[in-house]
Amino acid sequence: MGEDDRGRTRRTPHPDRLLPAEPHLRDIARRLYQRVCELPVVSPHGHVDPGMLVRDEPFPDPATLFITPDHYVTRMLHAHGVGLDELGVAQGPLDEAGARAVWRRLCENWPAFRGTPIRYWLEAELAEIFGVEQQLAAETADETYDAVAQRLKDPAFRPRALYARFGIDVLATTDDPCDDLSDHAALRDDPTWDGRVVPTFRPDAYLEPAAPGWPERVKRLGAAADVDTSSYEGYIAALESRRRYFIAHGATATDHSHIDLGTEPLGRDEARRIYASALAGQATAAEATAFRRHMVAEMARMSCDDGLAMAVHPGIVRNHHRPTFDRFGGDTGHDIPAQLEVVRALRPLLERYGTHPGFHLVLFTVDETLYSREIAPLAGFYPSVYVGAPWWFLDTPDAIRRFRHAVTDSAGFGKTAGFVDDTRAFCSIPARHDLSRRVDAGVLAEYVAEHRLDEDEAAEVMVELVDRQPRVAFKLGGGSGAEAPA
Amino acid sequence: MGEDDRGRTRRTPHPDRLLPAEPHLRDIARRLYQRVCELPVVSPHGHVDPGMLVRDEPFPDPATLFITPDHYVTRMLHAHGVGLDELGVAQGPLDEAGARAVWRRLCENWPAFRGTPIRYWLEAELAEIFGVEQQLAAETADETYDAVAQRLKDPAFRPRALYARFGIDVLATTDDPCDDLSDHAALRDDPTWDGRVVPTFRPDAYLEPAAPGWPERVKRLGAAADVDTSSYEGYIAALESRRRYFIAHGATATDHSHIDLGTEPLGRDEARRIYASALAGQATAAEATAFRRHMVAEMARMSCDDGLAMAVHPGIVRNHHRPTFDRFGGDTGHDIPAQLEVVRALRPLLERYGTHPGFHLVLFTVDETLYSREIAPLAGFYPSVYVGAPWWFLDTPDAIRRFRHAVTDSAGFGKTAGFVDDTRAFCSIPARHDLSRRVDAGVLAEYVAEHRLDEDEAAEVMVELVDRQPRVAFKLGGGSGAEAPA
Amino acid sequence: MGEDDRGRTRRTPHPDRLLPAEPHLRDIARRLYQRVCELPVVSPHGHVDPGMLVRDEPFPDPATLFITPDHYVTRMLHAHGVGLDELGVAQGPLDEAGARAVWRRLCENWPAFRGTPIRYWLEAELAEIFGVEQQLAAETADETYDAVAQRLKDPAFRPRALYARFGIDVLATTDDPCDDLSDHAALRDDPTWDGRVVPTFRPDAYLEPAAPGWPERVKRLGAAADVDTSSYEGYIAALESRRRYFIAHGATATDHSHIDLGTEPLGRDEARRIYASALAGQATAAEATAFRRHMVAEMARMSCDDGLAMAVHPGIVRNHHRPTFDRFGGDTGHDIPAQLEVVRALRPLLERYGTHPGFHLVLFTVDETLYSREIAPLAGFYPSVYVGAPWWFLDTPDAIRRFRHAVTDSAGFGKTAGFVDDTRAFCSIPARHDLSRRVDAGVLAEYVAEHRLDEDEAAEVMVELVDRQPRVAFKLGGGSGAEAPA
Repeated sequence: MGEDDRGRTRRTPHPDRLLPAEPHLRDIARRLYQRVCELPVVSPHGHVDPGMLVRDEPFPDPATLFITPDHYVTRMLHAHGVGLDELGVAQGPLDEAGARAVWRRLCENWPAFRGTPIRYWLEAELAEIFGVEQQLAAETADETYDAVAQRLKDPAFRPRALYARFGIDVLATTDDPCDDLSDHAALRDDPTWDGRVVPTFRPDAYLEPAAPGWPERVKRLGAAADVDTSSYEGYIAALESRRRYFIAHGATATDHSHIDLGTEPLGRDEARRIYASALAGQATAAEATAFRRHMVAEMARMSCDDGLAMAVHPGIVRNHHRPTFDRFGGDTGHDIPAQLEVVRALRPLLERYGTHPGFHLVLFTVDETLYSREIAPLAGFYPSVYVGAPWWFLDTPDAIRRFRHAVTDSAGFGKTAGFVDDTRAFCSIPARHDLSRRVDAGVLAEYVAEHRLDEDEAAEVMVELVDRQPRVAFKLGGGSGAEAPA
Repeated sequence: MGEDDRGRTRRTPHPDRLLPAEPHLRDIARRLYQRVCELPVVSPHGHVDPGMLVRDEPFPDPATLFITPDHYVTRMLHAHGVGLDELGVAQGPLDEAGARAVWRRLCENWPAFRGTPIRYWLEAELAEIFGVEQQLAAETADETYDAVAQRLKDPAFRPRALYARFGIDVLATTDDPCDDLSDHAALRDDPTWDGRVVPTFRPDAYLEPAAPGWPERVKRLGAAADVDTSSYEGYIAALESRRRYFIAHGATATDHSHIDLGTEPLGRDEARRIYASALAGQATAAEATAFRRHMVAEMARMSCDDGLAMAVHPGIVRNHHRPTFDRFGGDTGHDIPAQLEVVRALRPLLERYGTHPGFHLVLFTVDETLYSREIAPLAGFYPSVYVGAPWWFLDTPDAIRRFRHAVTDSAGFGKTAGFVDDTRAFCSIPARHDLSRRVDAGVLAEYVAEHRLDEDEAAEVMVELVDRQPRVAFKLGGGSGAEAPA
Repeated sequence: MGEDDRGRTRRTPHPDRLLPAEPHLRDIARRLYQRVCELPVVSPHGHVDPGMLVRDEPFPDPATLFITPDHYVTRMLHAHGVGLDELGVAQGPLDEAGARAVWRRLCENWPAFRGTPIRYWLEAELAEIFGVEQQLAAETADETYDAVAQRLKDPAFRPRALYARFGIDVLATTDDPCDDLSDHAALRDDPTWDGRVVPTFRPDAYLEPAAPGWPERVKRLGAAADVDTSSYEGYIAALESRRRYFIAHGATATDHSHIDLGTEPLGRDEARRIYASALAGQATAAEATAFRRHMVAEMARMSCDDGLAMAVHPGIVRNHHRPTFDRFGGDTGHDIPAQLEVVRALRPLLERYGTHPGFHLVLFTVDETLYSREIAPLAGFYPSVYVGAPWWFLDTPDAIRRFRHAVTDSAGFGKTAGFVDDTRAFCSIPARHDLSRRVDAGVLAEYVAEHRLDEDEAAEVMVELVDRQPRVAFKLGGGSGAEAPA
């Protein structure tokens, strides 16, 4: 920190930020961090729009880049009494006055973010990408807005230039099974583009007969796969076909997020019967749940066949506040974690596929109690199970520390799956990965200082956490952990 | 620590107690603590008897002051084999021999309290209020008893003098809806008293049709409100009336403690029907639960109307050991935390009132797993939701640290509700608040040392945690966070 | 660490390993650790075969000593893709080539254990018992195998010599109620043996009517007790008789592990009825569960009569992966923790027996969330309840720290039950106890550095945790905490 030429606080990121305070630990951590701070970003799960990289247009304005679409930012402002309508949510493109007003809301409420990772990310992005180090505040609102807006006109701040500058080696998107993946194809076929953006097969809405519009959705699935989905067998074939299509477009993984992780399979006849009922809009809630659980097990079966890694992000109550959903839509900051159980829930799946050669199941949770009690013990036995990174509410300095301390005892480092940024905020990718590297360096420094690891071993682990583990768990290949889907 | 003139250990409180051990962190923490160590006590939730301040009589004896009514102390002695009968519980006033014997039990068993906050509080009280620094032990029992007993005869140790000495700015009591609040009125009308003691509306027993004596209780409620409670409408009107009465006597909040936080409202007809059944003693257990959940939602509705903040302390299995309850009554040390869920339970309430302007819902828990998973995410979206302080079993150095690390990521500091002492042990109030300030200073020092906050920001946060946050969350006004109920 | 004469890494255990990194804390911790590092081992719960000490034969080979029977080791290798068949599991005695091949699997996969307590234990065992300090790796596999195999031929490495060298004061085994305890008797009657090995009454399989073969099992119980178990009364009498037999052979405790801790008693007639149904193979699943819960309460009743301490290790889903169980049997690394609740579950038992003089109930859990929420508050009221040590997945540096911080606030140190190694890996006993002592010394150092305990008090606590607490809780007598069963 320091002051600018008008005596205002500057927030220059400290080179030792997030490293442990104790001097001996900090020295070790700094050395470990140095080993990985320049390594490329491996991003196996996120929500960046690939079309942004195809079009490579300038970002429109600071508010649209940093605030309006990012529910991490808007939820905290909302919690402090700023309406989502004041933040441009669900209003389409902002004009200059509108964008400036939204930016001002953030600046005025900047103290609300103290102590949160959101502030940490935003400060890192502003300073390290945009060279803006003024402390945000009502009195710096216009100045900082102008500084960012000015940069956005510079071609060096377009998406592809930033992708290169961020050192991204591979970026996985999250995609609807019916998506034609034309953006992915366009990138692949573009001789001027040398990045790697891979799709991820995310079939949630097609596996939940209770979701509104499900009969139409599976019809569209049939159309996309050119298969008649009026029968259960057709539906299964269509899903298998779309998975193949995704693999042909570079996918290495599927992704799943349901409220629980039930995986009890149904008999073929029962599956057929419920499928038909659901198509007719007549399945009960219990039947719809049973069918969805069956289908999650089916996804594992398909993964054993086609080699896609299977990642699960369960246990979120979506759209907790219905009036906000009705007015502003989903992903607006009120998805709230739920209590979760996976040991019994996953047993049917793991009894069938848990030791299948090459099957990978990456288990994420936002219920921290699962780390030491359920997920680490499962990953410490099943060759297929990887511990997903601390995610969403947990991808923060304190939670990442708790995560490592909770899972390492039972699962070591080699059954964890690296870091995922899980973000739609493109510019936050470097800061999020850097945060994870810094915190892991601090944790590993503790192991060294307590003589549980030699420092050269810790340095090897450091590199594996950043580079090898996500490539292996998500079958991304490349780097030091090549392993491609069958 | 040190020795007295007879070579016995003295326990002089260390000026840096509870601050982090690492020297750099301790320096920062010491500076942060200095900013708040002299600030007045804001106590928004507790169980002090206001009549004690009206009467201002000397405390009877050391055992009655420190042991017999304090279930924190008696439960630990009981856990080590000392019967509650040996501690004077439920035996009325103690004579001098009896009080001395009770005090001796504490002294003999003093090592049982090592490592507990109970010892920390008692040592702080004895040293800082009473100037007694001998280590408690069988051989110091009489001497320390005499020293405290001697002080209690001094007018400087009467309740009002201690209130002033403790620096209490405002003290909230917990009161029955039928209470005439005459003690509060007496204090308000006493020209020689310049403290502030406000009542809190605690209607638990009136909202639980399954509680013994409920029909008589709602009849008394009607009498207190001068409303006929033989109908559901009359019952609602009586509650609304008593809330107004409390507001007129200075109340700013209601307080609620039920076994779960269910808030599903009933239709008007169903509410009427169950009310009538319950009055007739014919409601089923399920109906009684449904009615109570409905009434908790009604309390939120009333808060939206009358502006009282709503605090909830759910999830306690009361009187776990029935034989002890039968012999010694309630609040005797065997209320035990229960597992809790609030995300789904609160959804009906929050969908209706969660974004109502001015509505405040302060969520306490003794199930720590809720902090990062449920309460912080809720407080990080809903403007009404505040994270209640770590409470009861959790108002301790280690638990407060865990609390801050668990909630700050998702809710920052500005959606937490400050500290509550929740005590009936009047003399423990300063030690409890001081403990909280010391621990928070240590946590904030970590943020500074890890370059996540500038030290001047941390100092601002420190003051807010002590002074602003409890005033805002509980609508106490005054200080830097004035906001009064409508 | 360092290098050997061929330039390879040596892993010489550091004298300060596991002590806190911060210099001031480390100094205190080192002094506290010095107070207990030479104290005898008190091992109140484990799975060592007493016949091993009767026979006192050399251990066959390094793989059989360190790998094949130890599910901690085999599960991690399995998690990294090494089949249990490659590790000699369930294959009977290994020949030399087989043992060497198994050892090589461990060495090749040594990095998989980084950060785990398994590595910590194995390194300590190899270095401190066998003088082997080479880092395990593919290239050191044969050399280290030979070094260990060579030592195993030396009489100084036979079980009795190691028992003496490990400084074991008392070792409790875990035994079937029908066991004739002839090994225990042989040791007791052997004039050349001066160790103490006591049996523990573990009746799980006799209390679960749903377990396969239960009718035959209770028939065998009757035969062992010489009581007709065709009636419920006979069954109860047989259990009481076998408990007396165990007491006569030195037992001081019973041990119980069921999936939940339900303790609701049945009426006598209902118990009789279900017992008869179960003998006839006709009890429903619900009846079997109800009967088992009733019997756990009965075990408490018997403990009040005969004075055996009662230890419970609930909440484990046994044999999660059925195909592995079918092929390799139980205890093969896929027992996984389950979520647990004990406050309500134990209420029936504690209301009846919780304040019975001399009754001891030691509560273990692998669900960490219970420590602060349930177990510590129960132990902080009930004189009978002791907090069991962090166990199985939790007997590790980080988990032990979390345990102390979670339970001390509400239960102090004096209601915790010391450490249990719970191991069938005989040579890991010293390393496991030493780990626990080091970590506790570090935790206590924090209390001293934060001025919450004087250092002389912390030193007393240190000794109590190692020596007094397990003797008291498990009624082992001896040391400083003599208390024998009635």
